[in-house]
Amino acid sequence: MRNNLKQLLASYGEQVDSQLEQILPVANGPAEALFAAMRYSVFNGGKRLRPALCFAAAEAVAASDDNTARVAAALEMIHAYSLIHDDLPAMDNDDLRRGKPTCHIQFDEATAILAGDGLQSLAFQQLTELRNISAELVVKLLSMLATYSGCSGMVTGQAIDLAATGQSLNLEQLKTMHRHKTGALIEASVLMGAITTAKASEQQLAVLKKFASDIGLAFQIQDDIIDVESSTEQLGKQQGADALNQKSTYTSIMGLEEARTEAASLYQQSMASLDLFGERADSLRQLASFIVNRAY
Amino acid sequence: MRNNLKQLLASYGEQVDSQLEQILPVANGPAEALFAAMRYSVFNGGKRLRPALCFAAAEAVAASDDNTARVAAALEMIHAYSLIHDDLPAMDNDDLRRGKPTCHIQFDEATAILAGDGLQSLAFQQLTELRNISAELVVKLLSMLATYSGCSGMVTGQAIDLAATGQSLNLEQLKTMHRHKTGALIEASVLMGAITTAKASEQQLAVLKKFASDIGLAFQIQDDIIDVESSTEQLGKQQGADALNQKSTYTSIMGLEEARTEAASLYQQSMASLDLFGERADSLRQLASFIVNRAY
Repeated sequence: MRNNLKQLLASYGEQVDSQLEQILPVANGPAEALFAAMRYSVFNGGKRLRPALCFAAAEAVAASDDNTARVAAALEMIHAYSLIHDDLPAMDNDDLRRGKPTCHIQFDEATAILAGDGLQSLAFQQLTELRNISAELVVKLLSMLATYSGCSGMVTGQAIDLAATGQSLNLEQLKTMHRHKTGALIEASVLMGAITTAKASEQQLAVLKKFASDIGLAFQIQDDIIDVESSTEQLGKQQGADALNQKSTYTSIMGLEEARTEAASLYQQSMASLDLFGERADSLRQLASFIVNRAY
Repeated sequence: MRNNLKQLLASYGEQVDSQLEQILPVANGPAEALFAAMRYSVFNGGKRLRPALCFAAAEAVAASDDNTARVAAALEMIHAYSLIHDDLPAMDNDDLRRGKPTCHIQFDEATAILAGDGLQSLAFQQLTELRNISAELVVKLLSMLATYSGCSGMVTGQAIDLAATGQSLNLEQLKTMHRHKTGALIEASVLMGAITTAKASEQQLAVLKKFASDIGLAFQIQDDIIDVESSTEQLGKQQGADALNQKSTYTSIMGLEEARTEAASLYQQSMASLDLFGERADSLRQLASFIVNRAY
């Protein structure tokens, strides 16, 4: 990883972690296990990619501030809740995430279900605490988070993924699944970061939406490439799990080489979108490059 | 059930069901099972008690309208999500609810987890669609729903309940659990119904909060009494399940007679609170009476 990218992720990560530290309930009292499970799952060494996109999009339009950190924290809590529920035995049944026991292994299934539920409501609650922007804008952000994370986005993506297990998908079906499952929250991260500044024009938002859609897809293709190329140790989870679970992937449908070409092409498109913003979008450019070139 | 109460519940039920019918995604497309599971769990013959409290509180303050129906639908979706997750094998492991297979039995566990997740986000989304009231008020309602349903309310109540399984609680601990687990959403229903009118005074809200707290506790005590007194057929679920699961209940701690006295006393208190509203609170009075006198 290049040094300035490392610094960029570290700086955004620090800001969102400091926010999350304040937001998450302290683990004590009669619901101690719930709060401990929420903290365990949020502070598990994640890359904070969605918060980073949120900060960088705000900076492309104007500047990031305390409200950006709060929105970034809400997005990360939604992401964390989805991973907890996705890892459950009834879903992907994963014991490891980033080399550590998943929430239901570290605690138990019931606590993991509740930790996910609690993180979801806490994410919405955080948006109601935004200050110094109009209530209309707060409602707009809440609407976006609900839409992109729920039945018009992420949750539906998970359901499509479930329904597809054991079936072979064509490329269009696979893209529909990923546009919902991972693409929606990446798009929400970029757009909500931009909108929170209260300074984003319609044109800027349209361009950022295209940018987010391209890198969202590239992200998933790269994920599939990594799953084929890396060891279990590098991944921090079972290597080749998708093939094992007979899941359709970009590499299984397109082949490894064509998947690489497609990811590179999406990256080029995403770079072209950012021309509108000039130097202000340099952080977004670094994040897009990271998404396509990362090896873990 | 007295005739006018029956009519009251039917009328509120029709209004919220018509709203829910429009809100819930139609069950087709690649996520068909998810949407079918959400509809199955919401339209399962529930009494719509929380929506009824929401409508009746609005009428005690001023009048109910389309916004009341939307808020009531949001509350019912939160209630439905909590029941789906509560019934899961890792939680209460219930196969029946209101005489019908629970969501994870009718569909499967993974779909049930996602249906709960989707209903939660859809509830928040609905509040962002309120019209003809100020955005400040919408944010206030969203904040209340998140607070009462999440880590300061219902989810924490579930976690306390989990932690208490197999342990014997004292009366104060049992009350703390129920204030969160069921009391919080009942309080939210009354307060959010009143606030949505944009006409509730601070005094009215304080009185309604006390009213809701009293009937919330009475509701739970009556639930425990019913669990002891009714047959499995009447309950539509396993009779005596609490004793079977070694859960502390009001009847196990206080005895049946004292539990009955306590419920009656809470009912009297709740009636006294409503004096402030005169005849406008007649529907709330009927609902409070139903809560304490119902036999199922």
